[in-house]
Amino acid sequence: MSEMYAIRRTRLREQFNAAGNAAALVSRPANVRYLAGPAPQGAVLLLGKTEDVLVSADPPEDRPADGRPDDALRLYTLPGPGDPAVAAADLAAAQNSDSLAVEEHHLTVARHRALRSVAPALRVGDLGGAVDQLRIVKDEEEISCLRIGAEIADQALGELLESILVGRTERHLALELERRLIDHGADAPAFPTSVATGPNAGRRGHRPTDRRVEEGDFLSVCLGATYRGYRCEIGRTFVIGTSPANWQIDLYDLVFAAQRAGREALAPGAACRDVDRAARQVLDSSGHTQGLSPLTGHGVGLEIDEDPQLAPAAMGKLDACVPVTVEPGVHLPGRGGVRIDDTLVVRPEADGGPELLTITTKELLAL
Amino acid sequence: MSEMYAIRRTRLREQFNAAGNAAALVSRPANVRYLAGPAPQGAVLLLGKTEDVLVSADPPEDRPADGRPDDALRLYTLPGPGDPAVAAADLAAAQNSDSLAVEEHHLTVARHRALRSVAPALRVGDLGGAVDQLRIVKDEEEISCLRIGAEIADQALGELLESILVGRTERHLALELERRLIDHGADAPAFPTSVATGPNAGRRGHRPTDRRVEEGDFLSVCLGATYRGYRCEIGRTFVIGTSPANWQIDLYDLVFAAQRAGREALAPGAACRDVDRAARQVLDSSGHTQGLSPLTGHGVGLEIDEDPQLAPAAMGKLDACVPVTVEPGVHLPGRGGVRIDDTLVVRPEADGGPELLTITTKELLAL
Repeated sequence: MSEMYAIRRTRLREQFNAAGNAAALVSRPANVRYLAGPAPQGAVLLLGKTEDVLVSADPPEDRPADGRPDDALRLYTLPGPGDPAVAAADLAAAQNSDSLAVEEHHLTVARHRALRSVAPALRVGDLGGAVDQLRIVKDEEEISCLRIGAEIADQALGELLESILVGRTERHLALELERRLIDHGADAPAFPTSVATGPNAGRRGHRPTDRRVEEGDFLSVCLGATYRGYRCEIGRTFVIGTSPANWQIDLYDLVFAAQRAGREALAPGAACRDVDRAARQVLDSSGHTQGLSPLTGHGVGLEIDEDPQLAPAAMGKLDACVPVTVEPGVHLPGRGGVRIDDTLVVRPEADGGPELLTITTKELLAL
Repeated sequence: MSEMYAIRRTRLREQFNAAGNAAALVSRPANVRYLAGPAPQGAVLLLGKTEDVLVSADPPEDRPADGRPDDALRLYTLPGPGDPAVAAADLAAAQNSDSLAVEEHHLTVARHRALRSVAPALRVGDLGGAVDQLRIVKDEEEISCLRIGAEIADQALGELLESILVGRTERHLALELERRLIDHGADAPAFPTSVATGPNAGRRGHRPTDRRVEEGDFLSVCLGATYRGYRCEIGRTFVIGTSPANWQIDLYDLVFAAQRAGREALAPGAACRDVDRAARQVLDSSGHTQGLSPLTGHGVGLEIDEDPQLAPAAMGKLDACVPVTVEPGVHLPGRGGVRIDDTLVVRPEADGGPELLTITTKELLAL
């Protein structure tokens, strides 16, 4: 593992050195984790001129739930209250760096000012999204964590479907799913579990309420597991009762077709906006142009919502080994709707095309 | 309710107008909520020269879990992808503001730059922690929400104590506590529930692991409920088995004495550092100087960790109607430790002194 972190740091260092920066300060938590391993909350990583240092306000726990930082790094714990980013800038100056690239998309204006004032001789530049970009293409170890996370989410969802649902609230179903995620080995839910019933069904990111499941409802759920830091996502929509209404079948078939079109468009070299369009045009062409989500999918990894974005104005192309969600949905105000969400890994045709990680059936189940 | 939000906005407007700013942009989520009510995720509030506008990327849900924004505000939903803060700066310029105060302790450097570039004629200043400061002293409605949240946390904890604990993991106990919080009416846990057993017991913010409760363990738990947005906190330490060891009794008595000293020091006009010292010197004087938490307590409200801080270097004095935690602890590496944590409201002597919100017993219970 240690070697992997060192290789990542070397790749980053080549980039910021080429841009004329002697040192870099990584503060965004997922980026710190990517380069340093599991670190205390709020820790920052200095890629220094003479030494790399993980700076934190708290010491790492003896046996933390999710592992320890890379042994190859020096750990520096602040002696008292303070901002690790400011302390790291101070260290950079002490290493005789003349320049330091920081993550301007993460540091606040106030922290940035404090950091500059502690090391006024340091030229402070922007590292931009360099680490975020490195994180997009995953190695097989990362994909393996996502795959296990997806299995856990599939298991949790499968068990829920075997239980009685009518009369239970969205909140309770969400909590039960989260308990089952932990039961099956998740570190934690990947994001707040969404359970939406009746008129709420099909809303992206719906926060569970006290509404109870009723006969005839659409029920849509979206959940994911965090496994060794990696987060996946699955979303499914079901019908409660013995036989779905015709409008429910029609809407389901439509969203299913859109989701399949999106999945089938995933390939190395495909433009992100074309994947979005493949799914979106199925919905558009049947008149569902209002209230569509601004995106059809997004990358997953150490964060649940990372690059690339699958959206109409997205730039860039997909690469092999990029895990993304494909999650179109339609919500009809007052009636509810359908959302179907998978996590897949982009793979070349020669390797069998996109690898589906979340394998729960996408047939319309009546529960 | 609407009136309350309008009054808060008026107080803030007086401040930033006096500082020479025509308009202000509030972006920190708890501050937006304080001034505008429950708002879509990522929403920002423009206190404009001619009109106040709540700007968000997503429209508010029809029946959101936690209520709707203040009716008196104009809602503006972005037509496509974008940063609400940038759109709000654009609106401020359209209202012919020449100046805009922003929350530099919340906006990132990158967002701040984007916001300035969309409205180059606008003089962009710093609102600082003005809203955070307004939030410190609570009104009785806010305290009532905290009181209900504390009751919920007491109930959840009380039920756990009646169940079998030996053999269960920290993770499962934490999940069960969170389920019980929801059962009793919490919107959500106020923060990730901490359950720490054996050598982990007594660590502040310990993240639950797969360690199972054993006979003879210290067990420390820290949990809280969010109720209508307001977050409280309770922490207790127990012994598992019939009779605590002598070292456990001694350590418990010590932390209890420190916590009581902290509680008794709470009064309007008391210096925050003196409250910290009251608790800390009990631990210091018995030789527990290493590994103490950098703070003895902190404010609670719309965030679980807000001003004031009760810490050795804290500035400022307490006011009446400020809710704070008092939560000293001692952790002995390899052996475990004790933490006792209450939420209280500072009240004058004439009103009976500090009001204890978390009323679960602080006797050393053997479970």
